Amino acid sequence: MTDTARRPEMLPVPTLPRDIETPAVVVDRERLEDNIRRLQDAMNERGVALRPHAKTHKSVRVAGLQLEAGARGITVGTISEAEVFAAAGITDLFLAYPVWVEGSKARRLRDVHDAADLRVGVDSEGGAERLAAAVAGARRPLHVLVEIDPGQHRTGVADPEAAVRVARAAHERGLIVDGVFAHGGHSYDPAARARASSEEVASLEAAAAALEAGGFEVATISAGSTPTMVASATGRVNEMRAGTYVLGDRQQWLLGAIPAQGAAAVVAATVVSVAADRFVLDAGAKSLTKDRADWIEGYGGLPRYPDAVIERLSDYHGVVRLLPGSPRPRLGEVVAVVPNHICPVIDLFDAFWVVGADGSSEPWPVDARGRSS
Amino acid sequence: MTDTARRPEMLPVPTLPRDIETPAVVVDRERLEDNIRRLQDAMNERGVALRPHAKTHKSVRVAGLQLEAGARGITVGTISEAEVFAAAGITDLFLAYPVWVEGSKARRLRDVHDAADLRVGVDSEGGAERLAAAVAGARRPLHVLVEIDPGQHRTGVADPEAAVRVARAAHERGLIVDGVFAHGGHSYDPAARARASSEEVASLEAAAAALEAGGFEVATISAGSTPTMVASATGRVNEMRAGTYVLGDRQQWLLGAIPAQGAAAVVAATVVSVAADRFVLDAGAKSLTKDRADWIEGYGGLPRYPDAVIERLSDYHGVVRLLPGSPRPRLGEVVAVVPNHICPVIDLFDAFWVVGADGSSEPWPVDARGRSS
Repeated sequence: MTDTARRPEMLPVPTLPRDIETPAVVVDRERLEDNIRRLQDAMNERGVALRPHAKTHKSVRVAGLQLEAGARGITVGTISEAEVFAAAGITDLFLAYPVWVEGSKARRLRDVHDAADLRVGVDSEGGAERLAAAVAGARRPLHVLVEIDPGQHRTGVADPEAAVRVARAAHERGLIVDGVFAHGGHSYDPAARARASSEEVASLEAAAAALEAGGFEVATISAGSTPTMVASATGRVNEMRAGTYVLGDRQQWLLGAIPAQGAAAVVAATVVSVAADRFVLDAGAKSLTKDRADWIEGYGGLPRYPDAVIERLSDYHGVVRLLPGSPRPRLGEVVAVVPNHICPVIDLFDAFWVVGADGSSEPWPVDARGRSS
Repeated sequence: MTDTARRPEMLPVPTLPRDIETPAVVVDRERLEDNIRRLQDAMNERGVALRPHAKTHKSVRVAGLQLEAGARGITVGTISEAEVFAAAGITDLFLAYPVWVEGSKARRLRDVHDAADLRVGVDSEGGAERLAAAVAGARRPLHVLVEIDPGQHRTGVADPEAAVRVARAAHERGLIVDGVFAHGGHSYDPAARARASSEEVASLEAAAAALEAGGFEVATISAGSTPTMVASATGRVNEMRAGTYVLGDRQQWLLGAIPAQGAAAVVAATVVSVAADRFVLDAGAKSLTKDRADWIEGYGGLPRYPDAVIERLSDYHGVVRLLPGSPRPRLGEVVAVVPNHICPVIDLFDAFWVVGADGSSEPWPVDARGRSS
């Protein structure tokens, strides 16, 4: 169940910089740092290493703040994200994805492996073979983690026996098996959040036990998703890879995974058209994205206009439905939209504006924007 | 009604370049040029000027092909798109959007106006005031078109009387009113396509007549959406602004708006994981987008696996559901996905690969990628 007490007007909106050119992403620096601190403290208390997923912010500067606060390293989702962060000197990297490397991608993976302390996900014997071929002749062996399906049914092996088979295939080809990882992403559903966390932990522990029974030393047991980030930091889990928590979004707020102050990022948009039953923002699908879980109404939250629903998006238009008699913005007003899902939103911008407590603002580049391959 | 005879396997897939790093957009050059030629011929026959919307391709090179084939100029959706094309020497521009210009945006609009032959949309007296203020003191007056709501209920004035009011406000402030425009975007619905076209034409003609009765000379009557691009090129309509037709996509194909060969663009994706009931592509929401009309199943078409449905997307994962016993790809196979909606997909890539009839391929930059403000 979503927390029905969570009304849009409870989401505090960062102060928007004056004369901002909309649409633009605005991030409240204090909240960003609070989010970093809050999760780091929670993991420190539990003795769990934090390795935040950088696909959310794609920012070298934000990753730097996470590392300064005590994060072990960062998680990335693609080889090109690994390249960007490694080039910026952030070299303790886990590529939490069962990458398939051939041709030029194999050469790129090899280069990152040579330049950084890279670990990579694997969920098939074929994938292990390709990884081993990619790093053949390297100075150091490549470390891998076997991906476990915790019930999300995306990637990951289905059971502990398959985990052992993949680990053996990796080991026989000269890869070092460090442990196991899972993403309890079925937690992105109000009805499944608690269950997803239990399954994430249980499936990881079962796979780790099977690997140990098969003669492997299991150093890393890595879980990760923002809705499960605290609940899954338990049992034998010793690494957490949450990503979205750092900026927060409407979905995480509605799920109850973050506090209201945890929504650190908004899209600033201008009201360009007003009619009797609606108004139109200059933020459309090319800035808010059409990411909307079926249990969420509208394509983002409007804290200042709690009765309004962002009902339709075209590329550059956000059409907002108004109830009769509801307060409405004036033409030209700049409003803050809390995006449903911040990760794909950040990927649409070359930079976001970070606003300090003193009202100053500066653009931080989205260094890994578009790095999807 | 969608054309139920249109099965995914009927969508021919361009030849994918060898060793392509996925996810990537691949465009078949012959089909691209056929699409340009086909619509240009249709408009030439009807004596209607073509001004394709460049927000689809965001490419100076594709715009160049459209102009070479006979397009009058191009349409853009944002000031920053206008800047990119003007800087590349494409200066006959219609910004088909009721932009709200203040501060630095006003200065940017003024600069494009100084550098190019720019016309701008307007749908409110307030908007006209802002435009006039932005170009105050310019060497030449700014030309505007009044936007009419043809029943889509997005932007645009609600009735001919409001069109006259906005035109008068523009005229009184020194803007030149060239005519009217509308986007019959409610045509993006199989049940409404024919009606949307009639309404687009009728609302434009009514507004044009009212403007003429009010003493305005109406030079341009501009319609535009891919599903209505041929049907609306009728009556007094003398300009067509379709955009998506140039690359095509699954939605336009299912609507019956383009022929199978009109789907010129695909996303190449690699199969990274295979399970009993599914496989997973390395193309997720950050390459396919979550654009999916509620009458369409799945987040893209897989012509080679017609029984498969792209059921869920995470940032870098596309989860494809398989029917029992259906043909399935091998791990590592590169497959072509026909995106539901190509416009926001192109905006996620710095370049797309254009494949010639001889199998050669080259990257064409997405010059206006991310230019949403």
